[in-house]
Amino acid sequence: MPSLRLALAQVDTTVGDLDGNAALVRRAAAEAAAAGADLLVLPELALTGYPVEDLALRRSFVDASRAAVGRLAEDLAADGLGDLPVLVGYVDRASGPVAEGVSAAGRGQREGGGEESAGSESGATGVPKGLPQNCAALLHGGRQVGRYAKHHLPNYGVFDEFRIFVPGRDLLVARVRGVDVAVAVCEDLWQEGGPVAAAREADAELLVVLNASPFERAKDDTRLALCRRRAHEAEAVLAYVNSVGGQDDLVFDGGSVVVAPDGEVLARGEAFAEQLLVVDLDLPEGDPSPPDVERVQRVVVSQEPAPAREPVPAPLAEPLEDMAELWAALVLGLGDYVRKNGFRQVLLGLSGGIDSAVCAALAVDALGAEGVVGISMPSAYSTEHSRSDADDLAERLGIDYRVHPVAPMVEAFLANVPMSGVAEENLQARVRGTLLMGVSNSEGQLVLTTSNKSELSVGYSTIYGDSVGGYAPLKDVAKTDVWRLARWRDADARARGEREPIPEASITKAPSAELRPDQTDQDSLPEYDVLDALLEDYVVRAMGRSELLEAGHALEDVEKVVGLVDRAEWKRRQGAPGPKTTAVAFGRDRRLPITTHWREEDE
Amino acid sequence: MPSLRLALAQVDTTVGDLDGNAALVRRAAAEAAAAGADLLVLPELALTGYPVEDLALRRSFVDASRAAVGRLAEDLAADGLGDLPVLVGYVDRASGPVAEGVSAAGRGQREGGGEESAGSESGATGVPKGLPQNCAALLHGGRQVGRYAKHHLPNYGVFDEFRIFVPGRDLLVARVRGVDVAVAVCEDLWQEGGPVAAAREADAELLVVLNASPFERAKDDTRLALCRRRAHEAEAVLAYVNSVGGQDDLVFDGGSVVVAPDGEVLARGEAFAEQLLVVDLDLPEGDPSPPDVERVQRVVVSQEPAPAREPVPAPLAEPLEDMAELWAALVLGLGDYVRKNGFRQVLLGLSGGIDSAVCAALAVDALGAEGVVGISMPSAYSTEHSRSDADDLAERLGIDYRVHPVAPMVEAFLANVPMSGVAEENLQARVRGTLLMGVSNSEGQLVLTTSNKSELSVGYSTIYGDSVGGYAPLKDVAKTDVWRLARWRDADARARGEREPIPEASITKAPSAELRPDQTDQDSLPEYDVLDALLEDYVVRAMGRSELLEAGHALEDVEKVVGLVDRAEWKRRQGAPGPKTTAVAFGRDRRLPITTHWREEDE
Repeated sequence: MPSLRLALAQVDTTVGDLDGNAALVRRAAAEAAAAGADLLVLPELALTGYPVEDLALRRSFVDASRAAVGRLAEDLAADGLGDLPVLVGYVDRASGPVAEGVSAAGRGQREGGGEESAGSESGATGVPKGLPQNCAALLHGGRQVGRYAKHHLPNYGVFDEFRIFVPGRDLLVARVRGVDVAVAVCEDLWQEGGPVAAAREADAELLVVLNASPFERAKDDTRLALCRRRAHEAEAVLAYVNSVGGQDDLVFDGGSVVVAPDGEVLARGEAFAEQLLVVDLDLPEGDPSPPDVERVQRVVVSQEPAPAREPVPAPLAEPLEDMAELWAALVLGLGDYVRKNGFRQVLLGLSGGIDSAVCAALAVDALGAEGVVGISMPSAYSTEHSRSDADDLAERLGIDYRVHPVAPMVEAFLANVPMSGVAEENLQARVRGTLLMGVSNSEGQLVLTTSNKSELSVGYSTIYGDSVGGYAPLKDVAKTDVWRLARWRDADARARGEREPIPEASITKAPSAELRPDQTDQDSLPEYDVLDALLEDYVVRAMGRSELLEAGHALEDVEKVVGLVDRAEWKRRQGAPGPKTTAVAFGRDRRLPITTHWREEDE
Repeated sequence: MPSLRLALAQVDTTVGDLDGNAALVRRAAAEAAAAGADLLVLPELALTGYPVEDLALRRSFVDASRAAVGRLAEDLAADGLGDLPVLVGYVDRASGPVAEGVSAAGRGQREGGGEESAGSESGATGVPKGLPQNCAALLHGGRQVGRYAKHHLPNYGVFDEFRIFVPGRDLLVARVRGVDVAVAVCEDLWQEGGPVAAAREADAELLVVLNASPFERAKDDTRLALCRRRAHEAEAVLAYVNSVGGQDDLVFDGGSVVVAPDGEVLARGEAFAEQLLVVDLDLPEGDPSPPDVERVQRVVVSQEPAPAREPVPAPLAEPLEDMAELWAALVLGLGDYVRKNGFRQVLLGLSGGIDSAVCAALAVDALGAEGVVGISMPSAYSTEHSRSDADDLAERLGIDYRVHPVAPMVEAFLANVPMSGVAEENLQARVRGTLLMGVSNSEGQLVLTTSNKSELSVGYSTIYGDSVGGYAPLKDVAKTDVWRLARWRDADARARGEREPIPEASITKAPSAELRPDQTDQDSLPEYDVLDALLEDYVVRAMGRSELLEAGHALEDVEKVVGLVDRAEWKRRQGAPGPKTTAVAFGRDRRLPITTHWREEDE
């Protein structure tokens, strides 16, 4: 059987950075060519970055993406890499008629989309303006020789593709070294029928799938099971290449895989790292007269078999265990948010508590100790151990560390503006927020918010106080997982013979906001294991009150937590939404109305 | 010809307040019955409020909406109103097979949606979870006798319905007093073919359309032209009933209309006010054997003609002119945001400038003088006229007015934390924000943000400073329109023989942030007429750089403003997004990626 040497490039792209992303493609192509690869595949929308959101609706952006893919083909040839076929994702626009059924299916948008059309509610016209499509380009010999437009556009959770793209309907099958290679993009793989079934009909021996699939905990197993099933259905080897890196609140985890039709894993990429996977595949030669299947576009890149050569060992990375995976996701998401937005340092308040300790340790792992500034801002209610735990943390991490007591500013406010009770508690937090932003504006660091998912969900946070900052590493991490992460990180350090970064005292002491004497979180909140289990079911899994009771939660806990979450939503209406984060648990309520009187009640 | 007395209820509902919204329906039904109406029509999703966003994906919410519509039918009968047929919008779930084409059209979601299905990317399954539908219920005799599910689900701009609803495919035609009445919902009217064409085929004499159509400037004319065209196409009288009131960043403007097939306006409702429109229509009697049209569900409510009665004069409200309309939209949006979130008062900083003056005047029009607290917070750089203009404004408006100089707090920060340049300027704004939030936490007012669209678009604002607040009345109003609004409001007061609310000095003086000596906005920004024209084309109309030049903007202005907007987007990545507002100009970039390196460049 002829051999095909396949290269899959896990790259960390940035949305909108067409030149920078093209440079990543060229670098991967040079490396793939040097390794003797016959075909290079990059992730979904690698040239534009993912997700592009409503940039796809800007004509100038689609024009720029189209121009960039043409320039990339020429540049690859100029680099001496024109012989290597390259599959890369980019944004194009539909040229022919739009897929049947698109306007008939209740989409509420008119076919055509020209200025002449009647318009619809709010003045938008037709299918998405400019007919953008989520495409894969096949580049060879200095030009684009093939094009595939994604069929299935996800429209749920974090995905809005049906809003901004027009679905494709054709299948691309490229013959490379005599082997027929079919192409699909991400969600196409998750849908029954469609491109996978078409690949089998078209007698493809290899199905390559370009992905930008965001990390979720334990999603890796789901993906592998799916790849195995689809490889079996397609009767083809399946090569799944995924993006890597943080983009706003998503983080892509790499972990590309190549799976045989019998389910054998032929190769597996690293999680959370850029990598070029090179894999030798023995595949049947394509039929000299392949079947003529409707809507299958065939392109012949090369018919002659590859020369005889020494096989290369396929990479087979071990999957990470749960906490290692979560830590790596948070480090990469944080680091990329900082770097891609042009910052070199972050700044955060160190309270001596577990949340700020874990945030600081994540930041040091992402940016190095020289990239992190910590400020202790003790108030009249801060305990001595808080101060010393913060000192201990900063010393362990080796970061720039400063102390600014907040009493003088707090007293100036209280002497001039009457405030009482919770307003005075919040004032301490807001003075700290103002202090951090002032230092950030003077020195140029990005402020990190140290709040975790549990306290934010129940509104245990001060608007414009501890919620201040551009990025919140733990916003999607429950408190019980913050403790788990801390213990895992310290144990990992011990196992490597290093000093633990997080002081044991920060892990074991009772959590407190220290905004009044002897305060602890459990004055206002249920125990965190009870709270976190309820938040998972109520917020993430969207269970109603009766479902929560059926699931075994105690009535008093349900009433308390549902009340706290609803009250927190009301609190948030009084201020701006919080900072960005790296999401690691989807299914959360993303688009609830701001003003709603809806409350969970037993029917 | 038999007469049909039609009642259309413009009501101000609240999302999720099922009981409160049902009470509005019952009140409208009592009023309609007292007026002798034969049919009452309420807006789209009147029972649940609009938009429900991802609440539609919570099973408990759909269950509650279904239960509420059944209870409403019973309550109407118990009220003695069971004889009056009532059409009202609510959320239901699809029971039969899902419309053909839904899963075939590239939606990227699997038909069925049960737990047993294979799942798709991110674990979501099928069409929207729980198969929710945007429905109209026909209630009569204590029960639901008809049901229509919206066919066309808008999926652009502020609309996300295709994400959360399953489209319907049948047409409902109800015979009332012997007249055949077809039903459609909002976007169904904007689409060629579909329900409008089906209404003609079904020989309906009246087409009623339930809407939740958000206000946009000058949209009223577009809607009327559309209603006339569709009435002509349907060969039927068309009755368009719209919601009224603010809901988060949308405001619904009422302005319901009834149009004859020849285009004559038979009735027109008030803008921005609740109203029951009662209209006598002379309509042909329905065919004793109406055509049997595929997918048309016919319901007979009553066959016998209405009794002879004195005709009522139809309401014919005059449309508002541009500034009057905009002022009314902002007053209603602000007032409803405050009231629906349970506040009685708002609090804002008064600088003596035009933005805070217009915000305060809007707030007084929305909530009365007793609902508004103004605080002057002069700094070392505030001019004497700023202070006196703020005094003058507060006196004209008759609001609770206080003065708190910020120097003591600013000095406490500067004495303890090193800050320089722009950090010191921002510090003044943040001390003001902290002061406002402290008073708000003590006394319970909602803080208003006074920033306008022009300065926010170019980042002329301090994160956690003047951007503090839960609601920003002018966030979607350009600076040049702020001045126009002020002049209009003062002229309107003069025309009514009242004292002008806004001091002339606040309108005529050069705008300044007063964060350093002799500062004016034009030190950093282009003239506002140039800036606003460019923002409209670049941000709202999404023109690229070459299109902006073609449109006649000067090269240096394009470069300056595009640079400012892009830099402002970068600035916003350092903090939380801003407060909510009432949107009055859609088409703005709603979902741009946060981290993007995309910049407008000439190709």
